[in-house]
Amino acid sequence: MRDLEPGLDAEEIGSKMSDFVAELFPLCRSITGDGIRETFHRIGKRIPLDVHEVSSGTRVFDWTVPKEWNIRQAYINDPDGRRIVDFRDHNLHVVGYSTPIEARMPLSQLKEHIHTLPEQPHLIPYRTSYYAEGWGFCMEDERLSQLQEGEYEVRIDSSLEPGSLTYAECFLAGDTDDEILISCHCCHPSMANDNLSGIALATQLADHLRGLRLRYSYRFLFIPGTIGSITWLAGNEERVKRIKAGLVAVCVGDRGHPTYKRSRQGNALIDRAAAHVLKHSGQPHRIVDFSPYGYDERQYCSPGFDLAVGSLSRTPHNEYAEYHTSADDLGLVRPECLADSFGLYLSVIDVLENDERYLNLVPKGEPQLGRRGLYPPIGAQGVGAELMARLWLLNLSDGQHSLLDVADRSGLPFRDIKEAARVLSESGVLASAPDGGNTR
Amino acid sequence: MRDLEPGLDAEEIGSKMSDFVAELFPLCRSITGDGIRETFHRIGKRIPLDVHEVSSGTRVFDWTVPKEWNIRQAYINDPDGRRIVDFRDHNLHVVGYSTPIEARMPLSQLKEHIHTLPEQPHLIPYRTSYYAEGWGFCMEDERLSQLQEGEYEVRIDSSLEPGSLTYAECFLAGDTDDEILISCHCCHPSMANDNLSGIALATQLADHLRGLRLRYSYRFLFIPGTIGSITWLAGNEERVKRIKAGLVAVCVGDRGHPTYKRSRQGNALIDRAAAHVLKHSGQPHRIVDFSPYGYDERQYCSPGFDLAVGSLSRTPHNEYAEYHTSADDLGLVRPECLADSFGLYLSVIDVLENDERYLNLVPKGEPQLGRRGLYPPIGAQGVGAELMARLWLLNLSDGQHSLLDVADRSGLPFRDIKEAARVLSESGVLASAPDGGNTR
Amino acid sequence: MRDLEPGLDAEEIGSKMSDFVAELFPLCRSITGDGIRETFHRIGKRIPLDVHEVSSGTRVFDWTVPKEWNIRQAYINDPDGRRIVDFRDHNLHVVGYSTPIEARMPLSQLKEHIHTLPEQPHLIPYRTSYYAEGWGFCMEDERLSQLQEGEYEVRIDSSLEPGSLTYAECFLAGDTDDEILISCHCCHPSMANDNLSGIALATQLADHLRGLRLRYSYRFLFIPGTIGSITWLAGNEERVKRIKAGLVAVCVGDRGHPTYKRSRQGNALIDRAAAHVLKHSGQPHRIVDFSPYGYDERQYCSPGFDLAVGSLSRTPHNEYAEYHTSADDLGLVRPECLADSFGLYLSVIDVLENDERYLNLVPKGEPQLGRRGLYPPIGAQGVGAELMARLWLLNLSDGQHSLLDVADRSGLPFRDIKEAARVLSESGVLASAPDGGNTR
Repeated sequence: MRDLEPGLDAEEIGSKMSDFVAELFPLCRSITGDGIRETFHRIGKRIPLDVHEVSSGTRVFDWTVPKEWNIRQAYINDPDGRRIVDFRDHNLHVVGYSTPIEARMPLSQLKEHIHTLPEQPHLIPYRTSYYAEGWGFCMEDERLSQLQEGEYEVRIDSSLEPGSLTYAECFLAGDTDDEILISCHCCHPSMANDNLSGIALATQLADHLRGLRLRYSYRFLFIPGTIGSITWLAGNEERVKRIKAGLVAVCVGDRGHPTYKRSRQGNALIDRAAAHVLKHSGQPHRIVDFSPYGYDERQYCSPGFDLAVGSLSRTPHNEYAEYHTSADDLGLVRPECLADSFGLYLSVIDVLENDERYLNLVPKGEPQLGRRGLYPPIGAQGVGAELMARLWLLNLSDGQHSLLDVADRSGLPFRDIKEAARVLSESGVLASAPDGGNTR
Repeated sequence: MRDLEPGLDAEEIGSKMSDFVAELFPLCRSITGDGIRETFHRIGKRIPLDVHEVSSGTRVFDWTVPKEWNIRQAYINDPDGRRIVDFRDHNLHVVGYSTPIEARMPLSQLKEHIHTLPEQPHLIPYRTSYYAEGWGFCMEDERLSQLQEGEYEVRIDSSLEPGSLTYAECFLAGDTDDEILISCHCCHPSMANDNLSGIALATQLADHLRGLRLRYSYRFLFIPGTIGSITWLAGNEERVKRIKAGLVAVCVGDRGHPTYKRSRQGNALIDRAAAHVLKHSGQPHRIVDFSPYGYDERQYCSPGFDLAVGSLSRTPHNEYAEYHTSADDLGLVRPECLADSFGLYLSVIDVLENDERYLNLVPKGEPQLGRRGLYPPIGAQGVGAELMARLWLLNLSDGQHSLLDVADRSGLPFRDIKEAARVLSESGVLASAPDGGNTR
Repeated sequence: MRDLEPGLDAEEIGSKMSDFVAELFPLCRSITGDGIRETFHRIGKRIPLDVHEVSSGTRVFDWTVPKEWNIRQAYINDPDGRRIVDFRDHNLHVVGYSTPIEARMPLSQLKEHIHTLPEQPHLIPYRTSYYAEGWGFCMEDERLSQLQEGEYEVRIDSSLEPGSLTYAECFLAGDTDDEILISCHCCHPSMANDNLSGIALATQLADHLRGLRLRYSYRFLFIPGTIGSITWLAGNEERVKRIKAGLVAVCVGDRGHPTYKRSRQGNALIDRAAAHVLKHSGQPHRIVDFSPYGYDERQYCSPGFDLAVGSLSRTPHNEYAEYHTSADDLGLVRPECLADSFGLYLSVIDVLENDERYLNLVPKGEPQLGRRGLYPPIGAQGVGAELMARLWLLNLSDGQHSLLDVADRSGLPFRDIKEAARVLSESGVLASAPDGGNTR
């Protein structure tokens, strides 16, 4: 029986995570380059981290590791020489992976390279062009519409050259080689909920778990989206088989209610554990089916792997107005929401760590709990949740049902069933199933 | 990939079908005799048709092909010699299979042979007496109640004699011997929705499909109800095994919403295809479970055959007030409803023709669609239905899921998934499953 | 085909059961002793009954048969010598299994031994202390709160000594050794719904069935709760395998709607039979899942046995305000409710007795029912429930479906399907499945 919450302080955790989000916010991350490298450097100050560099041009399944992109400066000057867009003001002003340019051009030509959000005219969109070389700027639509005709000066001082893709992992060895995967993408510049909240959560979780003795080994992947998970999968095909469950950590800091997106398998242990935890979380929540869009679960759940990896977030990416805009800023992410998400992740892991099958050693009729001090001495009264947890666990401990099965069928929270398992085991009427009680 | 709708003109099709219903309306059909024979003659002018005659007295399973019935004239004269009921006015005035009679009798005795609808007093009911010899008239209840006492003159100039039962079939050979069955009964006199609409639809469908190259062979059965399907099944027991799916076409011309009645199997490919098409039809509809009453699905789904045959209609027979009355007339059947039903049948057949399993040739991680021009070059934006269809198809093309499986799980229409299969196959990332990709 | 209701008179049955409840009400039952013995003596006057005595100290699985308890007198006198609680007034005044005491004590000390219901201040609670030796009284909270300080005289003239546990069974041999179990606990003093209604129902049912030829053997167990079923199970481990279905009869006399609590298996024949009967009972009802609390189903459904035993009651024990109080009196139990419960039990047994698989002997197409007088001679009209039952039974009699399967799928009541089976068997188109048609 493992207790994962010795002396947890939710407020302290929320504020640590929130501080880390704020610290990482100014860096200009992309799928390669110095921004993501510096991000890993900061994570590495908090948890043990292996940082890997994979050379541009390396084949990874159907893909090729792209060139490395770095940017120093970028701006647009209007015909009067006024700087109307400056990369220094906001990382989102430049389309990710923009090639270098230094030119003068009329407004009409410039506009072909400018992205705005006409329906959110005061926000800067987030755009990238990783796999089609080109350049572009992003700006507020309301400012674009005020620009005068004339010749504009455009400059992007970037480099797109052979280099490497950088990713990082934190591995915590447990009692077994079976692994739980926590994955978060780290490639978004200056957006707080997508994806800094996920980075902060994964970092905090690794920091918390590394102090505990664990049944499973835990692998935290900090990677650029899509190409990062594909690169990791391509380099670790044998290791993949050890992954028994996983979660993609994204968008975990906003005020929205929790949402769990099922793995492609749909009813894997991770799916049942997450659904159970949300059901008993005491807050509104949603469980949505897998779909092949979103974050790196797309790769983990591709048919060649079909891993039991879901995603536990708050408001899903495509459902909040600030998504992929300059409004996904530090104000959107709340310390108490980060802490709540952290608690949900830990509760899911508590289920994974403690879900086992037990055997009722007195299976014919009920054991006489009274003489073991586990039944109220005065009869004919009602019965509380504590006793119900014991009776359910005894009734279903036939070697077929795990603690989570018992919790789900009884409607009681996993922690009550786990506590009943502890008490009944100590009383000698229950024992771990002889095969070790592992669940699938 | 088969396209079944090259240049379809719904308006033209609706008016063709409607015209055919009007042409067939005056004929006095029954389960045998010259009315049904003439009906087949008219169908034969539109599509290739084999007409079969089966002698009266032939044993067909538990039944015997009945005598052939023909009628020339029938009337009732009142005590004053006025003709109060005349077969020439409406085919429904005579109970089907009435034996000949020429007699005078008092009103009280005559009434034992008269059928009315007291709750629909202005309508003539449709009644038959195929398997119990006798005679009778059908008339409006409001007119019956006005008849005076006295002696009436009754005459039915009919014949019920050894002859034959007539049925017809149109067979379209496809690439395989596996057959799709479209069956409609042709035995009802002067009713437009039940059953002329079904005859018109089957005829039009056969005419449309015979111009196309098809995966399945198609068998259109034009038969008298019950005894016709039993006769065909008894004469084709070996052939029956080839039937992979089927639809009983009835009541397809009224303004009601489409209704699909499942086969006895309940979840056969035809059931899933019809449910899918109705779900994406953009109109209200119902799916109802099989029950052993209705039309010839009773015979096709008898336990000795248990064929995957459902029925796709508009308002089911027992739910519209005009059913089996003189109000099931040409006004009840609308060209646009006939055309809509035709479109639904064709969409179901499109699913049957094109449902296959494919294999994702790049199953580990996603294939890089961008370099194949199948992914938007500017990233971090939303995603449309076209791309989602591609991602779903790739994700589920593990050899287990057919296009219909993908469509159902994704919630996208079959045609989108089919189009994604075409595009991805051309791009080389998808291929038909090596066993041919046949679905069950 | 077995008819279990030859000339049933519901009113007579209700009044018989009600009279029996009234007759047994005054006896002071407990899990051992003369009260339960006398109860069995009265039951034995109505049905053949084997009474068993099992010595105190006998090991029964994890339990030990307790000492025998008997009580003669008990009272509390107040400081003025007034008798404020007297066992003669109500059996519930003494905590069951109270050890003897004769003492004087201040009110504060006495109160530690007094049980009341503060939220139902005018009722006496029912309390026991079977497995923790001690003594106590139960009384109305409103009277307790009026007691003055001072020294009270307390006396309980009881005995708790080696003796025996008594239980009884009524066995009705049927055509097979397979058994149906009807179990009711008999250990509650002076409460009418819990548990006298169950005793009366089981007695009446045994009396009714013993006059009939039955497929199954029937075992009626009259036992003290928990320890009684455990004792019976321990002494009959081999016999247990014969039990194919069972019902725990409790709380069957109140005005509440019927409630069926499923067996642990959840979808056993008894579960389906009970659900079917309630669905067609024409009254509101509930089906609730098994839970390991309640009555002796806890023991029958313990994982070492996992018998197909459910419980059919009216308002469940924990849901009526009078439960385990002095208000569970003769006014709570209604003759017409007892009779209704009896009818439900008999209907469930009718399903068990008659559920069989049949074979359609004319499986290809429908048999021609008309020439057998089983189809209306005038066609093209609607169809009634009687004909639908025949068509459903023929359609599903493929050797896979039992009568209950047909009833459930068709939505028709079992009795209609059973009648159709009788008629179609007589007509030669249906026969019992060659393996005897037994259902699981």
